Amino acid sequence: MQYREMDKAALQTELEKCRSEFEAQKAKGLKLDMSRGKPGKAQLDLVSDILTVLSDPSECMADGMDVRNYGVLAGLPSAQALFAEILGCKASECFIGGSASLTLMYDTISKAYTHGLLHSEQPWSKLEKVRFLCPAPGYDRHFRITESFGAELITVPMTPTGPDMDLVEELVKDPAVKGIWCVPKYSNPDGIVYSRETVSRFANLKPAAPDFALMWDNAYCVHEFDGDFLPFDDILSLCREAGNPDMVYEFASTSKITFPGAGISVMATSEANQKYLQKLMGVQMISYDKVNQLRHVKYLKDREGTLSLMKKHAAILKPKFEMVLDTLEREIAPLGIAEWQKPKGGYFVSVNTADGLAKRTLALCKEAGVVMTGAGATFPYGKDPRDRNIRIAPSLPPVEELRQAMEIFCISLRLAALEQLLG
Amino acid sequence: MQYREMDKAALQTELEKCRSEFEAQKAKGLKLDMSRGKPGKAQLDLVSDILTVLSDPSECMADGMDVRNYGVLAGLPSAQALFAEILGCKASECFIGGSASLTLMYDTISKAYTHGLLHSEQPWSKLEKVRFLCPAPGYDRHFRITESFGAELITVPMTPTGPDMDLVEELVKDPAVKGIWCVPKYSNPDGIVYSRETVSRFANLKPAAPDFALMWDNAYCVHEFDGDFLPFDDILSLCREAGNPDMVYEFASTSKITFPGAGISVMATSEANQKYLQKLMGVQMISYDKVNQLRHVKYLKDREGTLSLMKKHAAILKPKFEMVLDTLEREIAPLGIAEWQKPKGGYFVSVNTADGLAKRTLALCKEAGVVMTGAGATFPYGKDPRDRNIRIAPSLPPVEELRQAMEIFCISLRLAALEQLLG
Repeated sequence: MQYREMDKAALQTELEKCRSEFEAQKAKGLKLDMSRGKPGKAQLDLVSDILTVLSDPSECMADGMDVRNYGVLAGLPSAQALFAEILGCKASECFIGGSASLTLMYDTISKAYTHGLLHSEQPWSKLEKVRFLCPAPGYDRHFRITESFGAELITVPMTPTGPDMDLVEELVKDPAVKGIWCVPKYSNPDGIVYSRETVSRFANLKPAAPDFALMWDNAYCVHEFDGDFLPFDDILSLCREAGNPDMVYEFASTSKITFPGAGISVMATSEANQKYLQKLMGVQMISYDKVNQLRHVKYLKDREGTLSLMKKHAAILKPKFEMVLDTLEREIAPLGIAEWQKPKGGYFVSVNTADGLAKRTLALCKEAGVVMTGAGATFPYGKDPRDRNIRIAPSLPPVEELRQAMEIFCISLRLAALEQLLG
Repeated sequence: MQYREMDKAALQTELEKCRSEFEAQKAKGLKLDMSRGKPGKAQLDLVSDILTVLSDPSECMADGMDVRNYGVLAGLPSAQALFAEILGCKASECFIGGSASLTLMYDTISKAYTHGLLHSEQPWSKLEKVRFLCPAPGYDRHFRITESFGAELITVPMTPTGPDMDLVEELVKDPAVKGIWCVPKYSNPDGIVYSRETVSRFANLKPAAPDFALMWDNAYCVHEFDGDFLPFDDILSLCREAGNPDMVYEFASTSKITFPGAGISVMATSEANQKYLQKLMGVQMISYDKVNQLRHVKYLKDREGTLSLMKKHAAILKPKFEMVLDTLEREIAPLGIAEWQKPKGGYFVSVNTADGLAKRTLALCKEAGVVMTGAGATFPYGKDPRDRNIRIAPSLPPVEELRQAMEIFCISLRLAALEQLLG
């Protein structure tokens, strides 16, 4: 029975029942961190062979160079080719980075501020106002980059097919709107896959700013945990066809394919952007770690090799997501106090509670030993206007721990809802 | 006999002799690149064991963490400890970077522009004028960083004990002077070791700018190729003792210890600076590659292990430097057309020709198949006011190729001198 259909006496009984359940959970003294989308140990152990794939100096020759030595700013051609095959773009459009695509994103925004992008009339630091669109709920680290540079963050609501495109098309008429953060496949945190229409409307945007940056973080491009690989349109081609060849900057990495702390990353963007940005990047670096690039090329081989590894990750992740979704379905769905998507890929389950319950729920979770991503983190400035979005990251704990954590989460949410209803 | 003491007829005879020698060299069709301080293959092969030092997942646990996973922004504590021991500072003062210390330097200057440094009154991008001191001859990539951000570069002459400190002390009275680039040990390109007095005067500077940045690129901190390790004062301690704890940013890397294209780097600076900068860097990254950090810790072990490896590099490098210095001594010294330092460490020999000969000499070298660092590169804006400094990088070619290259260099320099004298 839904809580809102119960009378006060029934709610009171339920509250007492929940309180004693909560206290019992708390007494177990659990300590669990589910705040970040960290792969678990079993996933890391999957890829141990990458440690030894390069073990002899003779294997360090690749693409006509000794990868141990200096040089080749854009990265190993075979690493460019690997990412190009995965993303569907050209190798010449790929710049290979280090262990974090986040750094490539930050550096792109940073250079927009200090030097300007290819079509900038002046560096953004010289402008009175820079606005940046933030589909929310979204990825806190994205929002924080543009916030850190002083941009005004504008929230764009998410829909089941991606960001609200009517609103996006309206907002980009403002020349101070300089870009938007997107996670197009298995969005962080909702796990939504942008529809073909949404993707096409993005490619065909007509922003007033000539240097509008479509920040396309394809973090989960091959990260299905349920079912087969889902083909996805190449945004670079679509932008080119739409007459916006230099508008998009796409990012991806192997952080959740090989090692989160020691992967490689890519920024895919038009050859004209590459030429412009590499001139600036040549002042900042000689190249990212090419030995590690070669390790990845030898280990992953190609798109097929990568997808077959992702099937192994999926086998580990699927039971964890099922535990989360099944528990929510059983414990929460009948009460009518929250809704959620049922993603088939990515790293999160995003729960929208009834308004005003997120902070309290997470405070209760913490009290009982379960740390989740902070309430509000998925919104610009860390402020969820309806205080309702909670990001659950099931990847790190083993299934049994996850079961306990989800029990605590559900009882915390129920308690928070009851406290609110009983005012 | 020195050229300037010869009469015109003797010079003419010498010119003809040199021309025919030059043509003979040119006819050999040599192709040699000595433009960068790249380690040679034998040096890279020295460190092959680092490829396999981490080969089992169980070895990836260190400092109480799984280095394969996300986290620990400042880097592996044991990597911090390794660099602290080498530099003589505290582990808590070390931030561990990726394969290029250049990137750490760039990012520090970039953040000074976008966010300001710890004691900045405002970000440098908001200032009308930023000036930066550039001891020259110096490292072109340093100068290019500050040039790229629009700073005005001010040349400070080098002396045999380091930059002209009287001038430095005078220039820093200008509040627009925001910093200086230094390579204190085996300076690039002269190979000069700053004297204790110079180092102490740096630590005791009284710059007008509260956020003056002493950019201390200790690139060759353990890079003796001739003789024993030369102890060097820790600049962080000296600055702290002088009441300038937050003035210095020291950089080093393993680029010329392990692999140039796959090493680790460090930025050592006060704990207060670390706290301030890491807050900004936390927006830019999760951490640099910790697996590679652990490889370095396991492979180099400590200061002693590092110094013993550097002895092996020295055994490869010393004959190359001797070839350069011996050839110069034999072919050029008697003619009085150039001078040079005789370094005991670092990666370069810096030749100062008679005024106006550098460009022509390097053009002739190139004509005969030997590419050197471009003339002027060692000065701000790539402009050597006296057109005389040439940076020779002997590390890459095998000794026999180096012998040929030096023959070409000497004959080119002689030709250039004779052409000039004969007007």
